[in-house]
Formats: sequence, C-alpha cells, structure tokens
Amino acid sequence: MDENEFRNVGHQVVDLLADYLASIGRRPLSPRIEPRTLRALFDEPLPQYGIEAEDILKELQEKLLPNCVHVSHPGYFGLITPTPTPIGILADFIASALNQNIGTYVIGPAATEMERRTVRWLCDLIGFGPAAGGNLTSGGTMANLIAVKLGRDFVSDNTVQHRGLRERYTGYVSEERQVSVDKAFDMVGIGRENVRFLPTDDQFRLSLDALESAIAEDKKAGLRPAVLVANAGSTATGSIDPLSKLAEIAAREKMWLHVDAAYGGGVLLSKKRAGVLQGIELAHSVTMDPHKWFFAPLDAGAVLVREERFLTASFGMTPPYLTTTPDRYQFYVHGFEQSRRFRALKVWMSFKRYGAGEIGSWIDRNIGHAEQLYELAGKDIAFECVNKPVMSALCLRYRGKDLEFHQRAAAEIERGGKYWISTTVLKGQPAFRINPVNFRTQREHIAGLFHDLQDICRQTKV
Amino acid sequence: MDENEFRNVGHQVVDLLADYLASIGRRPLSPRIEPRTLRALFDEPLPQYGIEAEDILKELQEKLLPNCVHVSHPGYFGLITPTPTPIGILADFIASALNQNIGTYVIGPAATEMERRTVRWLCDLIGFGPAAGGNLTSGGTMANLIAVKLGRDFVSDNTVQHRGLRERYTGYVSEERQVSVDKAFDMVGIGRENVRFLPTDDQFRLSLDALESAIAEDKKAGLRPAVLVANAGSTATGSIDPLSKLAEIAAREKMWLHVDAAYGGGVLLSKKRAGVLQGIELAHSVTMDPHKWFFAPLDAGAVLVREERFLTASFGMTPPYLTTTPDRYQFYVHGFEQSRRFRALKVWMSFKRYGAGEIGSWIDRNIGHAEQLYELAGKDIAFECVNKPVMSALCLRYRGKDLEFHQRAAAEIERGGKYWISTTVLKGQPAFRINPVNFRTQREHIAGLFHDLQDICRQTKV
Repeated sequence: MDENEFRNVGHQVVDLLADYLASIGRRPLSPRIEPRTLRALFDEPLPQYGIEAEDILKELQEKLLPNCVHVSHPGYFGLITPTPTPIGILADFIASALNQNIGTYVIGPAATEMERRTVRWLCDLIGFGPAAGGNLTSGGTMANLIAVKLGRDFVSDNTVQHRGLRERYTGYVSEERQVSVDKAFDMVGIGRENVRFLPTDDQFRLSLDALESAIAEDKKAGLRPAVLVANAGSTATGSIDPLSKLAEIAAREKMWLHVDAAYGGGVLLSKKRAGVLQGIELAHSVTMDPHKWFFAPLDAGAVLVREERFLTASFGMTPPYLTTTPDRYQFYVHGFEQSRRFRALKVWMSFKRYGAGEIGSWIDRNIGHAEQLYELAGKDIAFECVNKPVMSALCLRYRGKDLEFHQRAAAEIERGGKYWISTTVLKGQPAFRINPVNFRTQREHIAGLFHDLQDICRQTKV
Repeated sequence: MDENEFRNVGHQVVDLLADYLASIGRRPLSPRIEPRTLRALFDEPLPQYGIEAEDILKELQEKLLPNCVHVSHPGYFGLITPTPTPIGILADFIASALNQNIGTYVIGPAATEMERRTVRWLCDLIGFGPAAGGNLTSGGTMANLIAVKLGRDFVSDNTVQHRGLRERYTGYVSEERQVSVDKAFDMVGIGRENVRFLPTDDQFRLSLDALESAIAEDKKAGLRPAVLVANAGSTATGSIDPLSKLAEIAAREKMWLHVDAAYGGGVLLSKKRAGVLQGIELAHSVTMDPHKWFFAPLDAGAVLVREERFLTASFGMTPPYLTTTPDRYQFYVHGFEQSRRFRALKVWMSFKRYGAGEIGSWIDRNIGHAEQLYELAGKDIAFECVNKPVMSALCLRYRGKDLEFHQRAAAEIERGGKYWISTTVLKGQPAFRINPVNFRTQREHIAGLFHDLQDICRQTKV
C-alpha cells in the first residue's frame, strides 16, 4: 500500500466515520445478534493472500459496524466507556502514523515531552507539587496496579522488588472498590485474602471506624498494614471516601495512600462540584483516566504520583541495550511498561481544542442528568434512588423486586435499542446502574429513558 | 466539533499524514534539538479555553513532526518499533472512532469476536490446539507479566492469588532476556533476586547445563523452581533457546514454561527460517507482539496460552456491576485488564490486506538485510560480528574499542540523519546493535549504513 493508496483509502475512511458519527443517534444502540452467529461471521483461517483495502472496508461495514454497541449514542448510560471527542479520534490516527514509542526518549523525543506536559496538567488538577510525576497507562487497572506496587515497595523500603515478599502485608479499601483493586493485590503477591473490603456509610463512603478496627486487628495478628485505597468516584454510585481523614490515618500508620479517581477525576474540571475531591492532593498516588470522564478514546489511563522518585525507586532498571544521556527523560526508568503507545496526543489535543472549561461544562451537564433522573425517580413511588448523585452515577431500584427482575428490565431496555443501562448489587440489594458520561446526551434522553423504564418495570413479570 | 468539522479536519489529517509518509525517506531521521529546548516548546499551563483544530494541526507541524524520530525511515535500524502498515494506521483510526471496549462483551460484541479470531490466528501460527486462548496486550512487558503470574498461580495450585506469596519461588531465564522479564518477577512478588540469569552458549542460547545446576541448587536450598522463560528471538541477537529441551525440563520439574517471542514470533511467517521455533507449541504461554515484527502500529502485544483455562483460573473474578449470560465471551474473566482498546482491528486488517504471505516476505527480506550486513562486515577485518543472524538482529563491534567508542560512533550516525542504530553489551563486550525490522528498508540502505559506519569508526577517537 503506497502513499497514494493510503491517501485514497484514508479519505474514504474519514467519510465513513463522519457518516457513522452523524448517524449514531439514529442507529439501534445495540445489535440483536446471537454471539454464536456473530462468531461465525469472522470464522476464517489466517489469510494467506491479501485483498484490496476497499473490500476490507466493505466487510467492516457489513460485519463490524452493525455489530458494535454504539457508546457514542446519547442513550448509552453504561459502563464508563466515553463518547470519544472527535479531535481525540483524529489525534489517535496521527499517533498511529507517527508510531512514536514513549518507552524511551530516542523513539519519540517530542512525544515524550508531550506526555510529560499532559501528566503535568493532570497533576496540576490534583494539586500535586513540582516533584510529582506519572505515566499514561492502558487504563485504570494498570494504574491501580502500578500504585499498589509502589505502595508495596514503599512500605518494604524497596526490598520486596529484589527479595520477594517475605512478610504478610494487608490492604484496605471499601467494598465499593472497582475490581481492578482486587486484581492489583493479587498481582503484586499480597493476595486478595489480605485485603480488607470494608463497609460503607449510607452514602457508600468508606467507614472510618471499620477501617480503624481492621487495622488494629491486623496489627494484633502480626500483619503489616501497607496500602490504603480510597475511592474518589466509585464505579456504581460515584461516592467519595473521606480523603483528608484517610490521609491522616495513612500517615499515622506509614501506609501508602492511593486514590482511585479513574472515573471521578473528571469532577476536578467541574464548576458544580468544585472542591469535592479536597484532600486528594495528600495521596501518594492517584489513578485518573482521561479515557473515562475526560472523553478521550481508549486507551488513556493515568497513574499520578506525588513524588516521581517513588516511581524511579520501584521501576528504575537500565538494560544494556538502552543507553542514554542524563538530559533525556526516560519513561522506562520511571514506570512499568517499556514500549508504549503515544497516548498523550489525544489528551493533549482534547485539552487544546476544548479547554478545561468546555470539558468541565460537559461534566457538569452529566451531573445535571443524574440529578434530573434523581428528581424524576423521586416522584414515582415505585422507584427508590439508592444514592443522591455526587457525580454522574445514579443507582435506583424498582421496589420489592429482585436482581433477576432488574436484569430482565435492563435487557428489555437494551432490546429497545434506544438506551443502554446496567444493573448492580449494592449492600446486597439489586439496582439499575445508570451513568450518563456522554457529551451527546440531552435532557430529553434522560426523560425518555425514565419513561421507558417505568413502562417496562410495570409490565415485567418475574 | 460537529460531524462536518470532523470531516473537514479529517481530510486535512489524511493529506498531512500521506505527505508525511511520502516524505519520510527524505527527512533527517532524528531531530537535532536539545531536550531542554524541546521541553520548553510545550511548556504551557492547562488550557482553559479551546482553539481551532486547524491551529492545533499547525502547532503539531511545527513542534511535533520535526521532533519525531522517524521509525518508518528506511534507515531506522533501532529498537524494535516497527514501520506501521498503512492499513494498520487506518484500522487504529477506525478503532478510536468506534471506541469499543474489549474488556466486556457488551461494549464491543463484534470487536470481542474479532479479537478472539485474531488470537486464534496467532495461536495457529504457534501450533497451539483448540483449547488455547489469549489476549492482546499493550506490549510484551504486559504479556510477560501475565505469563509469569500464570506460572506463579499454576505452581501454587492457584493459592497465591488468594493467600499471597508464602513460599520462595524461583525463575530461570538467560542473561539475554529482555528487561520486562525482570520487571515481571518483581511485580508478581517473587523478586528479582530469585531469578537466575543464566549464561548462554556462543550463539547466545541458554545453557542447559547451567539451567540444570541452578535448578538443583535451588531445590537443595529449599526453593521452589516455578517459572522458566525461554527466548525465541532475543532483543540483541535474535537468539533462540532450545525450546523442546526446555519443555522437557519444565515438564519434569512441574515448572511453567513461557516463551518470550515478542520480537521473534514474526519468524513464524518466514519461509527462509521455517521451523526454527520448533518446540514453541510445547510452552504453557507465549508472548508474541504484532506491533513488533508483524508491523502493526503500537500497541498490539499478545499473550497466548496453550490452555485458556489457565487464564480463567488466574483472573476469573466477576464484579457485581458486570452481569452476563453464558454465551457472551468476557475477556475480563480471562485476563488482567478490564477496559481495553480494540487492538485487534489493526492486526486483523493487516492480515486481511497483505496476507501471511506478504508479511512473511518482508520478514525474509529483513533477515536478508542482516545477512547482507554480516557479509559486508565479514570482509572488513576491523569489524567483528558478534552473532550470525538467525533473525534480523545483528550485533557487531569495531575491534579493540570500548563501549564509549561505540556509543560515540552511534551518536555520530544519529547526527548524520540517515540511519539510526543502537549499542549494547554482550558477554561484557560492547557492540553496535543493528536491527532492520522495516518493510521500507532496501539493500542500498544496508550498504549505505555500513559505508558510513566504516568511515565514522575510522575517524572516531576515544
């Protein structure tokens, strides 16, 4: 494929995607195809010979596009996968063509500096000082993993990375944590059984009493309290743990404090909720995913560390085939991954195109959507709101019904093709989980969703 | 930014990138700019207000493009970051616009099936049977990490993930391993000190005698041999460890055998080197990065597992907010990451556009380049080839000179702007590390590089 073919096919792709983006609101949100049938569509042996790009594009239009879940549809209130900004999509296209590798300076000098600048912007939002650093990661799971490892290495005085785990460390997090926290403690060798999944108050915030008791008990049993993970925007309800108080406890116990703001970090751009994350600047590390509520295309997670030296202490190995000079900033000695995609470009370009102001106004609109739904549900005695919206996440339930009922109703919403919501379980009770993190969503979509939900719940029998 | 603006700016970006790709060979390969100066170019506070897309593109043309290292330049013989296929670049663009999230079926039904098909193709290349599975990862570092964790969990009967590490496990790998192996053993809690970095033979292949002694010694000391990592294409020389024999030893010791073919996996498409990876199908897991010698844009790594059930046993947790039906394949219970970019599309589209045949012919051409350079250097008594090319990697040294000399000469090559090579240290001796993994490279570039290298080495004084 030479440059002329690239140019011709590239223009076709732009038109195809522009048409796609223009048509999203009119498409059924989810495909109605059996997984088995879908699987069969792609069942072919490894191609031995090539075909024309045009034919591949046709195949995508037949097989891929109709079988996507359109996360940019204004009725998508689902898992926190955003409507990507158009400029972010174009940025990713440029990043792929340049194929800079941020792992090491020599395969991306400007790209390295652009990531550093993007990390600086995120650190500034948190309130971290000049000693801070960080990496863009493939998502919150990687960011939380890196943070938990930093904590493990910090409390062990950087011995575990060399000698292996010899003591029993414990971790603390509320039961509202995202599953990536469990995965991180498993991965670093601490083990999931050694993490205390603590109860929350009526606003789903980690209970300080429960935390204090758990720490005391663990210490009595000879275990070493090591890593405390706070939610700043839990997945289900957007709840925020008491950050400043947790920072005090962590300091007293010489624990590492990590704040998981993978989703909730977006609220730092909000005017409506200014200051709700106060105390986040006291954390040792923060996860904040630009590919969530900053509307960057996947993937752009971030782990941000109050003092960059912690990253270097935990990850700073220099292999002989990577030689360098002191003035070249090398991400590979300040983080886990070696080869890394140029993820910063889409975040950088989104901030340049829209500014913190406009992105913040989308976030405030999403919070407004959650408040609108909270009000609507408050007027219908059959529904009960599980949380008052702090962020955009709202859980509500149809009174007196079990999880299966809620799942069936959500499946019925999915079948309608206009909206998408999920279900969850909170303190043992089922709920619909509705999260508008989409700058295309308008008030009419919230009203429409609630109208359909009322109808469906009245008619659904379990 | 509405769809019309996206269309207009998109067409501009296509033209910009087509011009870029057409001009690569004429550009200086590396920028001549001080890191400090480059850093200052991007030194601005977080933008509060947006600017026009056109102005951002202008800024990129001034600040980013001239300060890239052009990995697609035919004279780039550097770290294994490929010339991305044009169709792969377009595929990534489509992936960003659709923003499917492969973590869970509901945010990407067709994308999930396309990744499964892509994983199947890679497993077929290895010779894995129908029970195999895998994930596309952000790169070899993540793939090696997942593999080492699978090994840790396998030898512990899946207890470590719950209870934490309580025994002392050991790992084995040759000293030619990539640094990601060290990082993986650190991350999973085994510790880098418990990994035996074993000597190699004159072709840089892991010494079986050294391995047997190390295992015996560790067992005598009460340690548990857990994970054996074999190179199939080492970073510096492309050496291949004796895979079948290592599989026997691993089976005997009930160790997990992981093959790191992050770079070398491409040779499975080669006609010239058919069969050199025999035995790879006996591994428990294999790392094979499509973003290396399969020429996909970053990032597309892969961890491939002989039996998918190992992935499920190690990672299969189901959080309450992810509900599912049995016929929907959920990557999140078969791997580490939750949210995942639709990485498969670029690999799938590259295979469709070129077929295994054409990609294999590029790989064979790269092997030919290494052989050409090996012959050229063989004719000049001042040079010594450190390895005979198995793959595309060749190390050679200027006799009697130290590392600093080699680094200065490589820096001089970089300043010339026509070629890029790196340096390394092998068995304590310095060398130039030259690796043509680029389908744009021609024989003339190899001849030109060696000509310049001869000149520079003759003139360089240390």
